[in-house]
Amino acid sequence: MARLLDSLDLPKALKHLTLGQLQQVAGEIREEIIDTVSKTGGHLASSLGVVELALAIHTVLDSPYDKVIWDVGHQAYAHKILTGRLNEFSSLRQYGGISGFPRTDESPHDIYNTGHSSTSISIALGIAKARDLKDENYSVLAVIGDGSLTGGMAFEALNHAGQLGTSLIVVLNDNEMSISRNVGGLASYLSRIRTEPHLLKARRRLERIIKNIPIIGKDVSESVRKLKGSLKYLVIPSMLFEDLGFTYLGPLDGHDIPLLIRTIQQAKAKGGPVLIHAVTKKGKGYPPAEKDPRAFHGVGKFHVPSGKMLVSNGSRSLSEIFGEAVVKAASKDPRIIAITAAMPDGTGLNAFMKAYPNRFFDVGIAEQHAVTMAGGLASQGFIPVVAVYSTFLQRAYDQIVHDIALQGLHVVFAVDRAGLVGEDGPTHHGNLDIAFLRSIPGMTVMAPMDEHELVSMLDFALHMQGPCALRYPRSSAMGKKKVKACPPIEYGRGLLVENGKDVAIIALGSMVDPSLDAVGILRQEGLSATLVNARFAKPVDESLILEVSRKCKKVLVVEEASTIGGLGNAVSDIICNKIQEKVDFAHLGIPDDFVTHGPREILLAECGLSAMGIAEAAFRMCKPRGAISLAHEVSQSVASSVEGVT
Amino acid sequence: MARLLDSLDLPKALKHLTLGQLQQVAGEIREEIIDTVSKTGGHLASSLGVVELALAIHTVLDSPYDKVIWDVGHQAYAHKILTGRLNEFSSLRQYGGISGFPRTDESPHDIYNTGHSSTSISIALGIAKARDLKDENYSVLAVIGDGSLTGGMAFEALNHAGQLGTSLIVVLNDNEMSISRNVGGLASYLSRIRTEPHLLKARRRLERIIKNIPIIGKDVSESVRKLKGSLKYLVIPSMLFEDLGFTYLGPLDGHDIPLLIRTIQQAKAKGGPVLIHAVTKKGKGYPPAEKDPRAFHGVGKFHVPSGKMLVSNGSRSLSEIFGEAVVKAASKDPRIIAITAAMPDGTGLNAFMKAYPNRFFDVGIAEQHAVTMAGGLASQGFIPVVAVYSTFLQRAYDQIVHDIALQGLHVVFAVDRAGLVGEDGPTHHGNLDIAFLRSIPGMTVMAPMDEHELVSMLDFALHMQGPCALRYPRSSAMGKKKVKACPPIEYGRGLLVENGKDVAIIALGSMVDPSLDAVGILRQEGLSATLVNARFAKPVDESLILEVSRKCKKVLVVEEASTIGGLGNAVSDIICNKIQEKVDFAHLGIPDDFVTHGPREILLAECGLSAMGIAEAAFRMCKPRGAISLAHEVSQSVASSVEGVT
Repeated sequence: MARLLDSLDLPKALKHLTLGQLQQVAGEIREEIIDTVSKTGGHLASSLGVVELALAIHTVLDSPYDKVIWDVGHQAYAHKILTGRLNEFSSLRQYGGISGFPRTDESPHDIYNTGHSSTSISIALGIAKARDLKDENYSVLAVIGDGSLTGGMAFEALNHAGQLGTSLIVVLNDNEMSISRNVGGLASYLSRIRTEPHLLKARRRLERIIKNIPIIGKDVSESVRKLKGSLKYLVIPSMLFEDLGFTYLGPLDGHDIPLLIRTIQQAKAKGGPVLIHAVTKKGKGYPPAEKDPRAFHGVGKFHVPSGKMLVSNGSRSLSEIFGEAVVKAASKDPRIIAITAAMPDGTGLNAFMKAYPNRFFDVGIAEQHAVTMAGGLASQGFIPVVAVYSTFLQRAYDQIVHDIALQGLHVVFAVDRAGLVGEDGPTHHGNLDIAFLRSIPGMTVMAPMDEHELVSMLDFALHMQGPCALRYPRSSAMGKKKVKACPPIEYGRGLLVENGKDVAIIALGSMVDPSLDAVGILRQEGLSATLVNARFAKPVDESLILEVSRKCKKVLVVEEASTIGGLGNAVSDIICNKIQEKVDFAHLGIPDDFVTHGPREILLAECGLSAMGIAEAAFRMCKPRGAISLAHEVSQSVASSVEGVT
Repeated sequence: MARLLDSLDLPKALKHLTLGQLQQVAGEIREEIIDTVSKTGGHLASSLGVVELALAIHTVLDSPYDKVIWDVGHQAYAHKILTGRLNEFSSLRQYGGISGFPRTDESPHDIYNTGHSSTSISIALGIAKARDLKDENYSVLAVIGDGSLTGGMAFEALNHAGQLGTSLIVVLNDNEMSISRNVGGLASYLSRIRTEPHLLKARRRLERIIKNIPIIGKDVSESVRKLKGSLKYLVIPSMLFEDLGFTYLGPLDGHDIPLLIRTIQQAKAKGGPVLIHAVTKKGKGYPPAEKDPRAFHGVGKFHVPSGKMLVSNGSRSLSEIFGEAVVKAASKDPRIIAITAAMPDGTGLNAFMKAYPNRFFDVGIAEQHAVTMAGGLASQGFIPVVAVYSTFLQRAYDQIVHDIALQGLHVVFAVDRAGLVGEDGPTHHGNLDIAFLRSIPGMTVMAPMDEHELVSMLDFALHMQGPCALRYPRSSAMGKKKVKACPPIEYGRGLLVENGKDVAIIALGSMVDPSLDAVGILRQEGLSATLVNARFAKPVDESLILEVSRKCKKVLVVEEASTIGGLGNAVSDIICNKIQEKVDFAHLGIPDDFVTHGPREILLAECGLSAMGIAEAAFRMCKPRGAISLAHEVSQSVASSVEGVT
């Protein structure tokens, strides 16, 4: 049967649809999303939760004249479909296809690139003030989840918006979840509003009751007058937002299209800062996702009728292996604490959460607080392990500097998803951690080559002093066949893996394995390469670097991190400073640019970070005029990405 | 007359003093603070505001068994005097003396180093949970200003603390100011509580009124029953904090010692998370500071009876010159917007605030929101200039990456107080900006050598595309005699200042002038040096670097920034990568360590960042066995620090 969706000139056509047609479109969008994401992977549950909201927004507003900003942006699939990307939707998150997040270069309806949490109100406020200064008249609307609202910068923006008083609509998409179950006083506050409707009616009921009080004598009349005067202070629970200067509308059923339309119209007519509290259901309309929204937050491929995940790769993720290792360590040392910012699943800490609930803290989407609270715990002798994705650790950079390193506290940062994350793309790549962590005084930075080394390094990190980061990619474990023997970790010492004479490859973490394959390729080309597993990005093993540099006179540094500020800078500094003779130097890493989305292997190969890319770079250093044979059968250089989504 | 203060064994003795004696001690502390700060400079107004609060806290609690954390920490002078540092207090902020902020290495009563805003609740919560896990029983108390409460991470911590429910006392020190006048919906909310006492009494008055309603007939009785049932929802304005799970006590007069003591005791007895709202007066007890708390927030030396600032240096600060230049630019281009995070005075933006109030935004102590809101404005064609101290820009690192650079937006960051700030010490030094900004794709980073170049670079920054940072030190202008001619700024191009053959000095920003002096010293030693004013830390002038490196074969990079991640790394990378012959390389910068407090000149000289230090480093490269004459009369290498406090 032909879909109504296919025949519409979107988003304009929405304004002329009947309620029944809008509901039909909602169903069709939902099917399109389920069908596509079952093949591409993506953020399913949150996207299904806002179908009606996206419809209502685009029915009332005139995008892109009116500006709609989606916080985090992983819930914007319906928005994409409604703004001219139905045909491209099947390419979601694919290399060369459309992004899983709003992208200004993809559509004029994507007003701002989002990917990290809690930015939308600040963006919207900036746009709203730009509108005022230009004397224009469009609406600015930000959609933000209750989880994102736990991020401090959302509060900073609410606070400022409340003061400025300019027209701005914030839709609080309250699904009682951030990514995992929501946390915090704010969450229980929202839950009280949702679950105790009588609370909301207190004010009106009181007004009614007071009107009915019989007036007998002057005293009572005076009392009633005073009582009525006090009524304006009988605040309903919306006060938290109203205290900050917002008009509060809600809570309302976030799947009731006509109600949503009316409320957005009302907010637009009211002017000033308005907060619409819409209660939605994560996974709405797809029973497996409704039942387990956490599992369907970010998914790989799945079987639609059953909701069963299709796992193409049986091996476990490094996150899981980290999670198990930290539980094991905690069983031996009661000082070990685990902290996550709303990512118990993604970081592998759910095992810890179950095993040691008292020593586990999910602080909400609040990386800043996570890090500084870890500092408080460390100051009293505990050993906090803060597990966070590389890209989100950026949010706590100042706290690492000021609240951990400056105090010399022993906090272990488990920096997951370091390097290129694949399909989530540029907002989520973790290419900057080496650069921003290396410059922090007193910080130790390690990167394991495989799961065995990850476990050893975690153990080492837990037993050292001072702040320490352990960074590893979004990758699956290599499995027993590929894992190398792991000599004990020594502070600031790398490992000589291969001892050749023509060129020295110094590789960090995830790049050791493809470099080992590159050494094999080079051998076939008649070149003998040295390979160093650097292990530490800080402090670097100066004596080993000097040794292999002096011996080979050609040094290639390979790392899955930004070339600016990476290990390569440390190596070139040492070569320049400490070696009297000329040493050739080259550096493979993530270039100084934002990298697109797509499979991790493709993106890595584009940066030259594959066995063949590394071999070619090393070959060129040795034989600038020669060419490497293309016939090499390269063993799989990087373990396949974990299925699923960050 | 002998002071009571001198005879006491503090803080223990406080518990045995009469109210009269406590008040006497308060007066003596106040005099001590005024007297000392008039000689040393420091944070006067905020410290005077919390004398009674510090007394009450140390009277009720048993520090250091009980833990007291001072947010920002610049108000902790009374705390320092009360915890055994009366004798050292005259060395406040002096090189080798006590710090102007809490320092764990200074006293066991300083539980945590603070300096940046809004960290205290996270720290306190971490400590409180550590206490619970160890089954201990001490009190944990955080003192946080209403200004600091506008910082998002304070909200993240309140939210989490409210949920955890552990015993924790937060004293909100509400002086209606952050550093400048406070901003935001939160501020007006607090002001409503303060200024409308009847609001606070609404609940109790309603209870009284309802009790007095005559009961006539069943209907009314039922009404009254319902009314009474609803009373629990008649929330007083404290609700914002109570919504988050805190017990709210206040507002109370923050200078009323017995009331403060009673309330802290009450909070301790109550258990759980308690917020005490204490209203204090910034500058309390010193009329000039009470009258103009902004001027007395951070002061240099002043004359106590008159409150007149003693300016030892008539020259203007770079901040002022920046402030004037941006006003001038704004007069020609209506797209220019200025944004500060509670620092209109410190950053020199107060002139802009007066000239173009509609295009000026003080967002509160909320650097994250400041940056992302700038992004919103830039996305609509405005040109925001975000003026912020280098050390505080760390708080917005993720926002610069994700909300500005990833979008390729044209936002100008005026990074003030870059490098060593002097007396404020390690929490405030701005040595990391080059490192954390250089690794961000698409970012341009410039550093002017003097005020003339600052103005030119600002103009250049306003006319280019994409994100751009301009970093300059806490320093005064050089004045007409010293300012060099300033050829036009060209994108990514440095400037050849001196053309010698023995050694090439590549200097950035504040280090160009002392390097010029160093060239003079070297000349006297018979060495001819090249001097490059790098101008750009990103992109670096590769061709000029190659040219001078090839010519001189010896390169010394000098920058007032962390050596890790600095310009030096870019230069060594270029030398290593692009030059076939061996080039000697050395690098002077701020070492990979936290630098103490003291006069900027002394701290710089300790890092070798003086004319003599630079000359010596260059000399050693040329004559490793020789020694430079110590008789050189070195001209003043760095313009004197600006009097005053950041």
